[in-house]
Amino acid sequence: MDNAIDPALLDPSGEGADLVALTRILCDIPSVSGDEKALADTIEAVLRACPHLDVLRDGDALVARTHLGRDRRVVVAGHIDTVPIADNLPTRLVEQDGAGELWGRGTVDMLGGVAVALALAVELGAPGTAPAHDLTWIFYDHEEVDSALNGLGRLARNHPELLRGDFAILGEPSNAGIEGGCNGTMRIEVRTHGVAAHSARAWTGENAIHAVAPVLTRLAAYAPREVEVDGLVYREGLNAVRIDGGIAGNVIPDACTVEVNYRFAPSRSVAEAEAHLREVFEGFEVLVTDAAGGARPGLDDPLAAQFVQSVLATTGGAPAPKYGWTDVARFAELGVPAVNFGPGDPLLAHKDDERLPVAQLAQCRDALRAWLLDD
Amino acid sequence: MDNAIDPALLDPSGEGADLVALTRILCDIPSVSGDEKALADTIEAVLRACPHLDVLRDGDALVARTHLGRDRRVVVAGHIDTVPIADNLPTRLVEQDGAGELWGRGTVDMLGGVAVALALAVELGAPGTAPAHDLTWIFYDHEEVDSALNGLGRLARNHPELLRGDFAILGEPSNAGIEGGCNGTMRIEVRTHGVAAHSARAWTGENAIHAVAPVLTRLAAYAPREVEVDGLVYREGLNAVRIDGGIAGNVIPDACTVEVNYRFAPSRSVAEAEAHLREVFEGFEVLVTDAAGGARPGLDDPLAAQFVQSVLATTGGAPAPKYGWTDVARFAELGVPAVNFGPGDPLLAHKDDERLPVAQLAQCRDALRAWLLDD
Repeated sequence: MDNAIDPALLDPSGEGADLVALTRILCDIPSVSGDEKALADTIEAVLRACPHLDVLRDGDALVARTHLGRDRRVVVAGHIDTVPIADNLPTRLVEQDGAGELWGRGTVDMLGGVAVALALAVELGAPGTAPAHDLTWIFYDHEEVDSALNGLGRLARNHPELLRGDFAILGEPSNAGIEGGCNGTMRIEVRTHGVAAHSARAWTGENAIHAVAPVLTRLAAYAPREVEVDGLVYREGLNAVRIDGGIAGNVIPDACTVEVNYRFAPSRSVAEAEAHLREVFEGFEVLVTDAAGGARPGLDDPLAAQFVQSVLATTGGAPAPKYGWTDVARFAELGVPAVNFGPGDPLLAHKDDERLPVAQLAQCRDALRAWLLDD
Repeated sequence: MDNAIDPALLDPSGEGADLVALTRILCDIPSVSGDEKALADTIEAVLRACPHLDVLRDGDALVARTHLGRDRRVVVAGHIDTVPIADNLPTRLVEQDGAGELWGRGTVDMLGGVAVALALAVELGAPGTAPAHDLTWIFYDHEEVDSALNGLGRLARNHPELLRGDFAILGEPSNAGIEGGCNGTMRIEVRTHGVAAHSARAWTGENAIHAVAPVLTRLAAYAPREVEVDGLVYREGLNAVRIDGGIAGNVIPDACTVEVNYRFAPSRSVAEAEAHLREVFEGFEVLVTDAAGGARPGLDDPLAAQFVQSVLATTGGAPAPKYGWTDVARFAELGVPAVNFGPGDPLLAHKDDERLPVAQLAQCRDALRAWLLDD
């Protein structure tokens, strides 16, 4: 097999797995959404070589579980697809003053996190190790595209029992700190209607673009909330993301649409978010086009609290809120508290200059490892 | 020649030319802009058969002039192209309670007016008639498309001497009344700029759509003027005709553009119109994308005053302002006072149900004829 991973790379004896080399191998197998097969094959081969893991494949998603008879089960999940390559593969390792950065598509979002999970999946549960909890490792496809295609969503539909657990960690980039929960997101269209007319006789028409003025005025004046949820402060946002009206340079427009994106704290439900927007845009036609609830950080869970301590001890990072919507919300929906925890700066995700400070790979591995082994 | 016009139709002895039959022939030769050749050929054959006319062809435009040695010259012009056919050819004549309507593309805009002009071109100046003025008849192409292609504009560049005259009548539909001059028109883009950001972290960006709120508020509050020019009251208009901003449902937009169309009275110059808009949109980036000055009605001209009297006597119609921009502005630019005068309701131009009350054909012909013969 061309893309096979040398088992020596994963051998945790001695220094532990070579996470930088492993991340490079994973990134250098192109895996843009829809084209994950080669990378899924490579990961599957590694998992199937582990006698302590029970492996299932669904499409290009993999689920590997220990059956150690522990009281509790921890799920660690990460997507293996990337956004399109921007002439930024193969990866390049740039070292300066002793600090290394790995450049290339997927290093941040999120094959660095996948490398950490894969190395720990091989190690924890193997003879000679005693994880404190049973473990479920999930590697899935189609996270970077239409939510209906999402591999984790498909697993939740096809094999809900495989996602069950007491706590979940999603390896999305969070600068090796815990980012708890996520904001919800809702998209609406605010629409105005008028009467078309030739602009030479504008008074015979009714201008739908002019009618949208109060919508933009309310948006410009809107003061987004900051909301504390389970000890973390979430910042909301309400923004026009698109506006469109008019058909020709000499026609009074009879329709105008403003698309608005609302990001709301996880203490607010989707229904409450919609009610709020209908209040903000009272008097206007409002159509909800897309909505996904947020996820509370769940850091009041005892398992989570231990994990926070482990990360604090390893990287010194205090938990912070996650603003963007991530798949932790899918776990929240299944009743599994979940946090984001992975190497890499989320602001560099999807960028052409995506790059990962390689030190964060070991930091994440060490924090997870210490907590899972209950050292 | 397939499309030749039977000279009997044009014989002014007895009842005069059969204007309804003539209009139908002209309409039933399709002449959508760019495809005027067949109709121009037909009209050219009629004009060249008249010994009293000196005929020039430039592309699909025709200029036919008398040389009677009169002191003054009147220009009568009309375009022979139409907007695309909407399953509304060949023409249909519908008669009800003695009133006839001719349905079909071009009946209103403006082959009815062309029929009136063509019949009078054949009659006036022929032996036995004594027009009060020398006459220039212009039939031109490409009026319904990009102004750069306009056949009258091309004639003004190639043969400016042929457009010279003391007064001009453009046969655009005006319900057989005189519509004097025309409003000017100006298009501008008002642009705002912001800073792009992921909408999950909106506070790191700056929303260019929100920034456009005051632009729309000013437009919605704007009270357009009514301005009297040479005795006619022109109604102005200031309208957003297009708005566009945003690139994706999760990106804070960094640019938004509002296209605004200003229709201004002919007493205001293009420069004054621009200055006014820069004042209205003070504080915003304004780019002028298109401008054409209006034309004063010129009804204080003695020739025009006589024409107004002739129309009043024939149709009872008092002169009114023309709101839309028409080619009268091209004559105004050449220093020739010009008015619109033709059969048909301008509100039906370009419509699928374009139709002409045929009585207006004879009304227009009679008013023009009486004035030109100084009866």
